[in-house]
Amino acid sequence: MEGKQGAALYIIVKEKLLALIKSGVYAVGDKLPTESELCQEHEVSRTTIRQALQQLEVEGHIQRVQGKGTFVAKPKIRESLTREIRTFMEQMRDLGLSSHSEVLELVVIPADEALAETLHLEAKDPVVKLVRLRFADSEPLQYVTSYLPWRIAPGLANDDCSGSLFDLLRTKYEVNIHRTVESIEPVLIEATISDRLETAPGSPAFSLESLTFNEKDQPIEYSKGIVRGDRFKFTMERSMK
Amino acid sequence: MEGKQGAALYIIVKEKLLALIKSGVYAVGDKLPTESELCQEHEVSRTTIRQALQQLEVEGHIQRVQGKGTFVAKPKIRESLTREIRTFMEQMRDLGLSSHSEVLELVVIPADEALAETLHLEAKDPVVKLVRLRFADSEPLQYVTSYLPWRIAPGLANDDCSGSLFDLLRTKYEVNIHRTVESIEPVLIEATISDRLETAPGSPAFSLESLTFNEKDQPIEYSKGIVRGDRFKFTMERSMK
Repeated sequence: MEGKQGAALYIIVKEKLLALIKSGVYAVGDKLPTESELCQEHEVSRTTIRQALQQLEVEGHIQRVQGKGTFVAKPKIRESLTREIRTFMEQMRDLGLSSHSEVLELVVIPADEALAETLHLEAKDPVVKLVRLRFADSEPLQYVTSYLPWRIAPGLANDDCSGSLFDLLRTKYEVNIHRTVESIEPVLIEATISDRLETAPGSPAFSLESLTFNEKDQPIEYSKGIVRGDRFKFTMERSMK
Repeated sequence: MEGKQGAALYIIVKEKLLALIKSGVYAVGDKLPTESELCQEHEVSRTTIRQALQQLEVEGHIQRVQGKGTFVAKPKIRESLTREIRTFMEQMRDLGLSSHSEVLELVVIPADEALAETLHLEAKDPVVKLVRLRFADSEPLQYVTSYLPWRIAPGLANDDCSGSLFDLLRTKYEVNIHRTVESIEPVLIEATISDRLETAPGSPAFSLESLTFNEKDQPIEYSKGIVRGDRFKFTMERSMK
């Protein structure tokens, strides 16, 4: 097989394998042929096959299991970027997945200057810090650190925060959640967080920053989440005016 | 300085430096103190400072220039995820940036099976392949490969595609652009593309897939773009129902 001008050979092989995965020739959980079988099939060198497989692995399409072989990975969870605020649990339920959170840290701390500015507080005002690991079907997907002004939900630091935080704020603290402003950036997962997310350090992930306001446009939560890139994609639809 | 329980020391130092950048104490283009000055200032080891700076660099907040020092980088371009289709050039114009595209490849090729399925064609039907590098203020930001059914714009392969593709389709070929379905994933930039984007191989980036339909809901363009993560972030606003 010859490489097309301008495209590296391994990318062509990668795209071919990906098409076979997407069309279901290789289904989720299937074992792929061995590297040497793939070399013969695609008439390329082992280096090229390895580069193609590495690319597929980094993008989350396949998983290599030491001593067992290479398997087709589960497809990514697609989160639709709607105009409406929807909690993580609502989104997972729509996808037919069960979900829960594991609370890693729940404390009251004094706001530093940057946080005070974000949450419209004075420096050293009390803030609830909540660190959660979010699971879908027992798979850790997101590592989220939230900060809330203590006064909007006094007592939160003693609550059970393993369910939906927004539901708890609404029902117990009568917080009127109005709008969120979010931003998405691509990052590499740090080692301290990749352990929790059961993924390799340095793998690509989303960093999702979110600031939520009540109906008086007061900030009620600032959060920063690391979302596994191998398990998650965002989708959206746009139309002409 | 002591590390808080559960948070690595370098992350605390990184967040402090980031707060100083965001508050403007260190402004865009400013040179940061040297590593040893930062060690003294924050009372941490050189290893910790290096890890913190590395993290800031990977996230695009600072740039290290060999032999000259470390400088505060330009803030990222924020693309608002609106409901409306807006061309790259329109977005850049709104941000006060000039933009253009460099055409790297423009050819007619036969569709392979995956592409034929995506574009609702028969395998081997002719497809226009267009590879472009998109610039804002002479900085390369996106590497985009587009595929269009040949029949929707015969002659496109001979056109000047350095302006807006959608504008060209609308004005010259009377294509009625109706809606796009997009998906965003985090990836690591491959070496072949990072050269073009003037960034390091392996840096975090967005992979942006897009399928555009006309008013009859026929696919008219499939594209896959690599968007520099150090220069771009997506933002959106959501509200309650």
